[in-house]
Amino acid sequence: MAYVHGYSERETQRLYEQAEILEGILHTGTEFPAGAKVLEAGCGVGGQTRLLVKRSPDAVFTCIDISEKSLATAKKLKEQGGFENVTFQQQDIHKLSFSDEAFDYIFICFVLEHLDDPVAALTELKRVLKPGGTITVIEGDHGSCFWYPETPESVVAWNGLITAQRAQGHDPNIGRRLTPLLTEAGFDVQSCKPAWLYADRLSPDLRDGMVSHIIVPMVQPAEKQILAENLVPKDVYQQGIADLSRVDQIDEGTFFYTWFKAVAKKTCQLETQPA
Amino acid sequence: MAYVHGYSERETQRLYEQAEILEGILHTGTEFPAGAKVLEAGCGVGGQTRLLVKRSPDAVFTCIDISEKSLATAKKLKEQGGFENVTFQQQDIHKLSFSDEAFDYIFICFVLEHLDDPVAALTELKRVLKPGGTITVIEGDHGSCFWYPETPESVVAWNGLITAQRAQGHDPNIGRRLTPLLTEAGFDVQSCKPAWLYADRLSPDLRDGMVSHIIVPMVQPAEKQILAENLVPKDVYQQGIADLSRVDQIDEGTFFYTWFKAVAKKTCQLETQPA
Repeated sequence: MAYVHGYSERETQRLYEQAEILEGILHTGTEFPAGAKVLEAGCGVGGQTRLLVKRSPDAVFTCIDISEKSLATAKKLKEQGGFENVTFQQQDIHKLSFSDEAFDYIFICFVLEHLDDPVAALTELKRVLKPGGTITVIEGDHGSCFWYPETPESVVAWNGLITAQRAQGHDPNIGRRLTPLLTEAGFDVQSCKPAWLYADRLSPDLRDGMVSHIIVPMVQPAEKQILAENLVPKDVYQQGIADLSRVDQIDEGTFFYTWFKAVAKKTCQLETQPA
Repeated sequence: MAYVHGYSERETQRLYEQAEILEGILHTGTEFPAGAKVLEAGCGVGGQTRLLVKRSPDAVFTCIDISEKSLATAKKLKEQGGFENVTFQQQDIHKLSFSDEAFDYIFICFVLEHLDDPVAALTELKRVLKPGGTITVIEGDHGSCFWYPETPESVVAWNGLITAQRAQGHDPNIGRRLTPLLTEAGFDVQSCKPAWLYADRLSPDLRDGMVSHIIVPMVQPAEKQILAENLVPKDVYQQGIADLSRVDQIDEGTFFYTWFKAVAKKTCQLETQPA
């Protein structure tokens, strides 16, 4: 799997900071009961794992990822973090080694946007979920993002990331598709809602967190691809990144982005039979 | 004032339907106490007025607009509606005939996006507001809008409306600017938040309401300008509108838009003096 943001230490740092900044927005309402077997699919370096285990200390987490390197980083987090209720395993989300109906719940965050075939992955996840169990899916939508002042260069630079991710065959605007994707994979969607962030001069820390610690560092690892494939001319790209970086430096700057969070159920066979 | 959506009966109908569909999203939290003198600036045909008077039946509303024609329609609404707590007056928002500090509260919705100089209008509104009183501002942001499936033609057609409104010297993406505009006009912004709508197959009525009764009818009055000024080629425009209209006809269609709602205070002189 090609990961558009790369596997650098800086990216690891970005993922940890992002998870902390966004905990309230993304994790509110996601708590699992004591003893529940929860699969986190695509845990990466463990950015979300740290919050999951903290919020559901008595659930039992199995966290998988395709990347050995990311898993090694996630395991270090466990050693440092003082939590025990998690096991890490290297697994391919498309072909899991778990038996059918092995888990009570599944959690998957910022993964589908990086897959060639998200419905195939969701279908495999459904196999290992117990009937009546739910999957919680969180994805961003890069097409939801806007800011002020919005210079043409900043829009072009941001769209460079979208184009780069699409060139890899992935969908950076997947948030708006969660309901149709889950439906196609045979889940019964219970809810799907925007989980938004808006920041202006009234919330300067959040604005700084989002712009300087999430958004700008998210574009930059794709810079090489953006420039090498000439998706954006170099001078426009540089001006655009400078303009985007300025949003949290000036009093009038504002920023909006929305993720989507969906909860969907694997229906029991009885429920899908006609009455 | 040029109004990009026109003054047709169909537009009046759109504005009434829009207000009803969006009441929960936009009016929640906006209630004025008994006896309060409230100015609604730019009431148009009374789409929001009807909801304001219903939600604050004991406040005293003065509703102004520049358009005689719109005011005549709004007055008919009053005759039909059975509410008495409102007076309509023709006034220019830039040069009000009211004395200083005449109102306890001001409400203004979907007006700033149609003005050449929104800060000048806000400054004049501040003059007629009592110190300690608040202004509630609601504006959309057409740059916040996205849908699925998102064909290139549908994006181009929608952007045609944005370009048409900008060509008139107005800002269709003004929602993201409420905090800086109010700050520039000398208000003390208390809060500014997205008021969003997301709809998919789980909420087909809302999806239909937003797409077929608000968004598509909003673009169409600008069609003449869009095509005459060749902002969008005719075949692309027609395909785009067809694609946009399809979003609420198919199971997988999804739609997102956000307005912004800000509440800002006119500070007392004492509050702004150094301690």
